Amino acid sequence: MKKKGRFTLPAESGIDKEVKKLIDKWGADAIRNSDGTKLPKELMDLAVKVYTTYLTVRNDQEWAYSHKNQLQMQYLMSKHNIATSEVLDIDIMEGFFHRQFEVDKNHDIKRYWEVYDRNTGEAVDTASWDFNEGNQKVTIKNAKPWHRYTVSFLAYQVWDTTQMYNHLTNNWTTPEEMPYDAIHEETREHIFKYLEQWLRENPGVDVVRFTTFFYHFTISYNDKQKENFVDWFGYSASVSPEAMDAFEKVKGYKLMAENFVDEGYFNSPFRVPSKEYLDWLDFLQGFVCENAKKCVDLCHKYGKEAMMFLGDNWIGTEPYGEYFGNIGIDSVVGSVGSGATLRLISDIPHVKFTEGRFLPYFFPDTFHEGGNPTKEAVENWVQARRAILRKPVDRMGYGGYLSLALKFPEFVDKVEEIATEFREIHNNISGTKAYVPKFKVAVLNSWGKIRSWQTNMVAHALWYKKIYSYVGVIECLSGMPLDVEFISFQDIKEKGISEDIGVIINAGDAGTAWSGHKFWIDDEATVIIKEWVYKGGGFIGVGEPSAYQHQGRYFQLADVLGVDREMSFTLNYTRHDKQSEEKHFILEDQFESIDFGEGMKYVYKTGDDTKLLSMDKGDVNLSVNQFGKGRAVYLSGIPYTSENVRLLYRAIYWAATKEEEIYNWFTSNSNTECAAYLETGNIAVINNSNEEQKTILYSDKNHHQVMNLQPYEIKWIKIGQEHLI
Amino acid sequence: MKKKGRFTLPAESGIDKEVKKLIDKWGADAIRNSDGTKLPKELMDLAVKVYTTYLTVRNDQEWAYSHKNQLQMQYLMSKHNIATSEVLDIDIMEGFFHRQFEVDKNHDIKRYWEVYDRNTGEAVDTASWDFNEGNQKVTIKNAKPWHRYTVSFLAYQVWDTTQMYNHLTNNWTTPEEMPYDAIHEETREHIFKYLEQWLRENPGVDVVRFTTFFYHFTISYNDKQKENFVDWFGYSASVSPEAMDAFEKVKGYKLMAENFVDEGYFNSPFRVPSKEYLDWLDFLQGFVCENAKKCVDLCHKYGKEAMMFLGDNWIGTEPYGEYFGNIGIDSVVGSVGSGATLRLISDIPHVKFTEGRFLPYFFPDTFHEGGNPTKEAVENWVQARRAILRKPVDRMGYGGYLSLALKFPEFVDKVEEIATEFREIHNNISGTKAYVPKFKVAVLNSWGKIRSWQTNMVAHALWYKKIYSYVGVIECLSGMPLDVEFISFQDIKEKGISEDIGVIINAGDAGTAWSGHKFWIDDEATVIIKEWVYKGGGFIGVGEPSAYQHQGRYFQLADVLGVDREMSFTLNYTRHDKQSEEKHFILEDQFESIDFGEGMKYVYKTGDDTKLLSMDKGDVNLSVNQFGKGRAVYLSGIPYTSENVRLLYRAIYWAATKEEEIYNWFTSNSNTECAAYLETGNIAVINNSNEEQKTILYSDKNHHQVMNLQPYEIKWIKIGQEHLI
Repeated sequence: MKKKGRFTLPAESGIDKEVKKLIDKWGADAIRNSDGTKLPKELMDLAVKVYTTYLTVRNDQEWAYSHKNQLQMQYLMSKHNIATSEVLDIDIMEGFFHRQFEVDKNHDIKRYWEVYDRNTGEAVDTASWDFNEGNQKVTIKNAKPWHRYTVSFLAYQVWDTTQMYNHLTNNWTTPEEMPYDAIHEETREHIFKYLEQWLRENPGVDVVRFTTFFYHFTISYNDKQKENFVDWFGYSASVSPEAMDAFEKVKGYKLMAENFVDEGYFNSPFRVPSKEYLDWLDFLQGFVCENAKKCVDLCHKYGKEAMMFLGDNWIGTEPYGEYFGNIGIDSVVGSVGSGATLRLISDIPHVKFTEGRFLPYFFPDTFHEGGNPTKEAVENWVQARRAILRKPVDRMGYGGYLSLALKFPEFVDKVEEIATEFREIHNNISGTKAYVPKFKVAVLNSWGKIRSWQTNMVAHALWYKKIYSYVGVIECLSGMPLDVEFISFQDIKEKGISEDIGVIINAGDAGTAWSGHKFWIDDEATVIIKEWVYKGGGFIGVGEPSAYQHQGRYFQLADVLGVDREMSFTLNYTRHDKQSEEKHFILEDQFESIDFGEGMKYVYKTGDDTKLLSMDKGDVNLSVNQFGKGRAVYLSGIPYTSENVRLLYRAIYWAATKEEEIYNWFTSNSNTECAAYLETGNIAVINNSNEEQKTILYSDKNHHQVMNLQPYEIKWIKIGQEHLI
Repeated sequence: MKKKGRFTLPAESGIDKEVKKLIDKWGADAIRNSDGTKLPKELMDLAVKVYTTYLTVRNDQEWAYSHKNQLQMQYLMSKHNIATSEVLDIDIMEGFFHRQFEVDKNHDIKRYWEVYDRNTGEAVDTASWDFNEGNQKVTIKNAKPWHRYTVSFLAYQVWDTTQMYNHLTNNWTTPEEMPYDAIHEETREHIFKYLEQWLRENPGVDVVRFTTFFYHFTISYNDKQKENFVDWFGYSASVSPEAMDAFEKVKGYKLMAENFVDEGYFNSPFRVPSKEYLDWLDFLQGFVCENAKKCVDLCHKYGKEAMMFLGDNWIGTEPYGEYFGNIGIDSVVGSVGSGATLRLISDIPHVKFTEGRFLPYFFPDTFHEGGNPTKEAVENWVQARRAILRKPVDRMGYGGYLSLALKFPEFVDKVEEIATEFREIHNNISGTKAYVPKFKVAVLNSWGKIRSWQTNMVAHALWYKKIYSYVGVIECLSGMPLDVEFISFQDIKEKGISEDIGVIINAGDAGTAWSGHKFWIDDEATVIIKEWVYKGGGFIGVGEPSAYQHQGRYFQLADVLGVDREMSFTLNYTRHDKQSEEKHFILEDQFESIDFGEGMKYVYKTGDDTKLLSMDKGDVNLSVNQFGKGRAVYLSGIPYTSENVRLLYRAIYWAATKEEEIYNWFTSNSNTECAAYLETGNIAVINNSNEEQKTILYSDKNHHQVMNLQPYEIKWIKIGQEHLI
């Protein structure tokens, strides 16, 4: 096996000897600098590929400082202010971080700002308010007493988000950088010119690692220099009067501040997207991808590859969107925080290769005395490995300061092992795909494909209350031998449910885009889904699936699921719900109490034949129901654990009415999984736990063999040389 | 002190000697029969008052069986049925108890029944469906496939609800009785005639205990003979085509089945009542009270008192409603399940006296070997005693079989003690009221006064999931030295907030009548409330107060409360919420972790100055906020415990900005309370716990004395003879 390749090392100057040793030990074939580090000349001359980070909208700070009217902007909303008389003063910047934002005074505020009466949901007549530039206050002249008002306004981003973050989190002290906005033709042309000059001046660079193109996801800080708002998917920092005017030309109608501010929710992905917001996304993606293509073309012109970092300034690229393919980017690199975020990278279409940046970063938060980076690295690797076996990233790497990593020799050895295991996987699968059954699993929500592997997320892979019991769904799926796709209600309305889909999953809180909100009282979609299940489809609902209070039901698919949720209107119905005592296929590998995460209280049985498989204090956590020829499973929540991977996997096979087929390439022990590469004749069996495991490997219901696996082991078996009996 | 009086004994035949002994021991001055028992002649001749149960609508079963077309009805709704083709058959009685209901075939079903498309919320054209009397199925001829349909229909109640309950629960075997409907003139006249004859034939009866008048609260049983639906407040069993026609004449418009069926929620008190439902209540109360008066007048004509049982067939009497006073009833008796249900009885206006039937019933569920009726009796008494000290019922009593009680001599002794204590209270307070501060507390919801002491209840005092953390509010209040009133949003819109109200409490789940639902986006009411708090009022929100998702807020009073609830749309806002470390007035008597009951997850801080007094896993359970000159308190839930009584009491004084005044007749130990009857010069200090307690009694902030109380003790102190220092 090759001991080198598929590995990118973060460079660091001043320790060239050690870097060279690590290149060898970890088998690196590429090195890269990070935001804030420079590649030393000597390393660049080594016979490995050189990646260099390129910050498209802030590499030229001279330009930024001399074109402050072309900086990027963000829509902000003031605090809620209650009028106690007819005159109300609102300090619009109250609570914001003054080093991050500067109120825009260059554009017509009466066109681009809005003062909203949040009692009535109406914009206040522009003649009724004024802005005082001196004290930064908006005064409403004839407010309605005891109504609450907000001001939506545009502010320049006078401190680049990522740099600000690093300054405030990692105590950086470099001069403050500002991001300029490519929407301005002058700036746009400068960006291309500056890039071309840079490409010319940096012949040693093989790969231009764009970090990224034009717009950062939304972050705003508060006046205590703490994060106030973060949306990894947010488009509120990609807007400007010029962009809104351009939008109007293309789409034929005006957007108002409220289309971005959205009651202060800023079109969080949890909101069912409005038509206007979807149009804006479409417009901005078109703009970003068109101009990103020009950057990529320049790289190619100078014989360099172009790589895109999926993060920071990724807004508008949307790798699963309409326009991404147009960019012509060679590769994408992104942070691997989990199996789902690995698949988010590895499934990206239209690129030559993908690369995952694994955890932990070589930063002092982990690499300090008493820290255990080895444990973090192994856990991150093992969680990602499940997903890699389904669809691997082509390359791997780490980020941070090598000098810190070097202080942990055990860690350095572990990375060598991981890199070797990673190359071994690629070697054994040779670009082929492991066995999957014929039916697909579809995750259904308001977003569909464009948010593939991104459902129910707030800030990339970060843990949040109210999401982890849903993110578990995609995390479990990310490593399952199943083809997964992400579909929207709109897809179903337009195209119906495609033949190859066996199971549909709907997971989320009521009212959110993930659950679907009003879509569930839209007959077109629900009628299609009900018919499809009745005729044999499988439906899995998690949390508050199909929830919308309407006509005697909260779960609009209560009749399919066999359960509904008590919203206090049916307390008068006496509950006789009892947990089923029958053994059930779904629970065959569950030996301990099930972890439903935050779960969902007050779910009760509506169907006569609904089987309640798990209850807590009288509430249903897990149930199954037959609906016509189809089946439905309800789960109150499913955070990611090995047991829950198995629970969901069995639920999927049961819902699909394919219980017998589950044994096609299956392992009995839920701490273990297998992947069968039938084309190369290799089977991988993995132990996801930190303990030795005994498991039975099945090739089908009638053939199996017992095996032992060391903690976290991956074992490769040649088909034909296994001992299936 | 008198050793006799204010006590009603349940009679039992065959043990006359024991009954006489108990009359003496417990000091009974009245005996009564129960539903199902007869008073023996010998007992009736004793020199005590005799109550006799009178079942207005079922005493004459001959009438019932010979007038089956004049039996009472109930609106029922079939199960939800999903159309799988254009023809849909619905077995309307599926799941119902056939011995309870018989489908009405005597009226025009196309007028009184409705087939509903529950996808669209529209009634199906009457020409599109038919009913087959043979198989009891409704057939929809042109259903929309995959829509769900329900049939709302009228059924005769062929088994009286209370009798059915006793048959199925207590194994009664008397012949099945059926309730006839006073809406039919013929039946109505018969009811009066029969009553008059009975009055004539029963000269020995002193008090006619009506159980009750004309309509039972709603109960339906399922085909497994188990309770399916119960609503102690429900009016679905007081309806008939004749009543609907009469309604139309009075109110000028037609009611449809859906006005009663209400999507299958049957106008549960948790639903914000519709105009139509409120009109129906008004109509029915008018009818019931008018005719109840005729019954009462007859009793008076024969020199007897008339007493009404608050339960069973109480529907339409509404003691806190518009028409109750017209009845002219002498007294009300009701079951005392708690302090709140005691106040529900004792606060009833327009009567000469009230009587509480205490727990436990002398039934085998408690009075069996190994049972502990004494404990139940003491706990029931002590919980009710708090409320009695604020507003006593005039009389007490017990129900059930005396012979069972006699087997528990300890219980018999305990009842003697309780009766003595009860009479002692009356003796010491002489009809006066204990000290209360000048400000009142108002409980605000959609129902207001008519549901005084009945908020958030399902089946009288029974414990239910999702209510006990709210019922705690009124249970705590029932024994507090505070004047409490129940007001509606409509009251506020029409009359504003009256001067004497110091604190408003809004407690309930979002969407319910208790929380208020859309009322909170009705400017008229919210503007008044906000202004009132700002100018010095106190507002206490429990659970989901003022909740309605609208314009960036879930709690519409978020700015007043200083907190809101995370509904997944503000996950992107980074939380920096921390529990306050300051000592707070509200928590001064809390020494253990607070019991918030079911609580309310995901509540977070919105106000800069909101103080978070108690948090769990990052969620707010208790917070306080200053709003202008006023104050607001948020509580995630407050089930009834002694500690929570104190917590709410302090919250009320804090919200009212009257902290100093709390010491006016106050005890330091939260297991104890006091009631100061300044007019009679007596102070009661009670120990609500089963342990000895030391407490400090304050007459005001500067005068106090230490005292010890035995378990459950009530101690009386004469003003002037206390040792306040």
